[in-house]
Amino acid sequence: MEVDLGHSSEKNHHLTSYSEALELLFGLQKFVTLNDDTITLENSRGRVLSGEVKALIDNPPADVSSMDGYAVNSSDERLNGILRVIDVSAAGNPARAQVSAGSAVRIFTGAKLPEGANSVIIQEEVTSIKKSEISINNPEKILPNENVRKKGTDFIEGTSIKPGKIITPKEIMLFAAMGHDKLLVKQKPLISIISIGDELTKPGNPHKKNQIFSSNAYGIASLLNKLSCNPVIFPIARDNMESIKRNLDKASQNSDIIVTTGGASVGAYDLVKSAAKELGLHLCFEKVNIRPGKPTFAGYLRNVPLIGLPGNPVSSYVCAQLFLLPLVMKIIGCKVDYPIISSAKLKSKMNSNGFRKHFVRANMRNDGGIRIVSPKNRQDSSLIKTLQESNCLIIRPSNDNIKDVDDLVDIIELI
Amino acid sequence: MEVDLGHSSEKNHHLTSYSEALELLFGLQKFVTLNDDTITLENSRGRVLSGEVKALIDNPPADVSSMDGYAVNSSDERLNGILRVIDVSAAGNPARAQVSAGSAVRIFTGAKLPEGANSVIIQEEVTSIKKSEISINNPEKILPNENVRKKGTDFIEGTSIKPGKIITPKEIMLFAAMGHDKLLVKQKPLISIISIGDELTKPGNPHKKNQIFSSNAYGIASLLNKLSCNPVIFPIARDNMESIKRNLDKASQNSDIIVTTGGASVGAYDLVKSAAKELGLHLCFEKVNIRPGKPTFAGYLRNVPLIGLPGNPVSSYVCAQLFLLPLVMKIIGCKVDYPIISSAKLKSKMNSNGFRKHFVRANMRNDGGIRIVSPKNRQDSSLIKTLQESNCLIIRPSNDNIKDVDDLVDIIELI
Repeated sequence: MEVDLGHSSEKNHHLTSYSEALELLFGLQKFVTLNDDTITLENSRGRVLSGEVKALIDNPPADVSSMDGYAVNSSDERLNGILRVIDVSAAGNPARAQVSAGSAVRIFTGAKLPEGANSVIIQEEVTSIKKSEISINNPEKILPNENVRKKGTDFIEGTSIKPGKIITPKEIMLFAAMGHDKLLVKQKPLISIISIGDELTKPGNPHKKNQIFSSNAYGIASLLNKLSCNPVIFPIARDNMESIKRNLDKASQNSDIIVTTGGASVGAYDLVKSAAKELGLHLCFEKVNIRPGKPTFAGYLRNVPLIGLPGNPVSSYVCAQLFLLPLVMKIIGCKVDYPIISSAKLKSKMNSNGFRKHFVRANMRNDGGIRIVSPKNRQDSSLIKTLQESNCLIIRPSNDNIKDVDDLVDIIELI
Repeated sequence: MEVDLGHSSEKNHHLTSYSEALELLFGLQKFVTLNDDTITLENSRGRVLSGEVKALIDNPPADVSSMDGYAVNSSDERLNGILRVIDVSAAGNPARAQVSAGSAVRIFTGAKLPEGANSVIIQEEVTSIKKSEISINNPEKILPNENVRKKGTDFIEGTSIKPGKIITPKEIMLFAAMGHDKLLVKQKPLISIISIGDELTKPGNPHKKNQIFSSNAYGIASLLNKLSCNPVIFPIARDNMESIKRNLDKASQNSDIIVTTGGASVGAYDLVKSAAKELGLHLCFEKVNIRPGKPTFAGYLRNVPLIGLPGNPVSSYVCAQLFLLPLVMKIIGCKVDYPIISSAKLKSKMNSNGFRKHFVRANMRNDGGIRIVSPKNRQDSSLIKTLQESNCLIIRPSNDNIKDVDDLVDIIELI
């Protein structure tokens, strides 16, 4: 057998830095325009608000009682005598009577303060004499605005919530209280995921010897799903130009973003870039100075952004967080910059780092108010179980020095 | 107007402690039996795994190369000469030839090591002489198992993931790699939410003076949605026995849990407990020694657990986290105990606490690896915007002492 060694001429190819690559990737935003979509409040969790939400009312809508008790006027000189209870004010059923000298109104939590009243005495501070008559236990202590929630204390009409945030259940409650049952969000971007590899078979299918189950697309799709995208998992493409081109061609016809996994390393079998180039791919970067994920590339194919992720499941998942997630968040209008970088203290010493920026699988936990992060012992990018057991990545800069126990390191929490 | 003062005889009612109330609530689990449901991997995010998942294969399925290079035998005495490249091994297309003295096999990342080989020399360490011939740059350095991922290093056939965890994208990737496209989870519990109040109108509807928009049900429903439940928002019930009973009656016919909000305080207008009792409610507890949320009660109505939450939006949302969430998590088979209590350091001094356990709305952030928590200034339980701006609750135990800056406090992160 004659073997074409197929050593790549790209051996000494320029490695793009991660920050540079991210910048170039963000340049691809211009190819994606998502329309606004009006959705119901109930379906808005996890979406990114794309229009301002303004309160339609003051909350509370009037001065209301914060307790069950009696509405009086604190300057009434007859508060030390017997008060006549002239009406009842309940939430939704405000009193019609007006509080005047020597009178009070029975009032319940959330009910509007009657005209003439400016304070609420809680019922535990009142003695009921007979039907419709009370006396106040400590009448000298009554001050204005006791147990009163002033109109608009929570928010006033027109209070605005700005677009750009992921909508949470707490926000949904606030938007409901502001009067809205519909919200404006961006349409979900359609993201096609193409896995490439002769060694792959679909989970659930029978498997032959030496085959492995395709997993990257499922991890990435559920990540995208969580980010309110519409991921589409393509059938597995095989390690030949025709299969890859056929899938890329199809994906480029109705995707907002195309993601490939596999076929992005060096060597004779790395066909995805070649196939995409034959279809007209414009490359923004190829090969990034990071570990894992060096073979990651990005560009646009027929005006559709394309991100080429490595085939190793761990590399593909980590790089989905490093590249795909930030691009998606920009496209759906999120004003928070991804990846979100925070910090934690090292549980154990780490050796100095080499040239490539290293994203180390790790576990962060809270220990008495301190965020302690422990790098995983085994960092090989094929270890899916190690990734599943990790909740963050420690960022080791290029040529970083030795790190000691308790040193502060940057981390990215994994989604 | 004659006014029946309606002071409650429950004034000095026994207050159940939070831990006691939670214990009693968990006793209601026995009324809910959810069947197992087989769902597709793609639809499993956020559900709780209810059956063990076992790997169908070893991963990697054989000893494979972790690099592009050449497979050799480290004990071959002819490694310092010219090696004949006799075959190619790629992922999905393993070599058929066997490595013998003086020979090598071209190999790519993820490809099976050929028979006779035990080590991979990366291509950068090799000089290609001509087609099918190479020499190794430093042949004396070759050791066994270099750049080799041993069979089963990630996981072996039968490696098991236990039930009881919420399924995340990382888990989905692992389950795919283990060969599964279907998973076992509990059916989603159907949870009916009934809001009660004459003052309420639906968001999106026109509103009259003094009306407020119903918000509790929307916040709680989207929280439940996040926890993989089927929440059903009932039409707003009015402050009369008939309206409440009609809704409770309907809810009790096909719910796994019933939640009411409003009508759970003391006073003449607190009808929900009375209405539920007329339909046969068995109370487990009523009035809990907490703030906010003192009027919370729970029991079972026709063998359906019922949780009565306060009407104040903030109280209802906080108590949904304190009571409903833990019960739901038990019912859907989650092995983690909710609420999850962690800790953080105080940003500012806090006064001593009164008799009632206080759940203080607060914001936690990371500051150089330290979790710093700042209580919100305004704690009135009507302030929805304050809640929306908070990400956690500080737990102040009953009669807790003054807390100083940097003191460690227990917190619950809000969902």
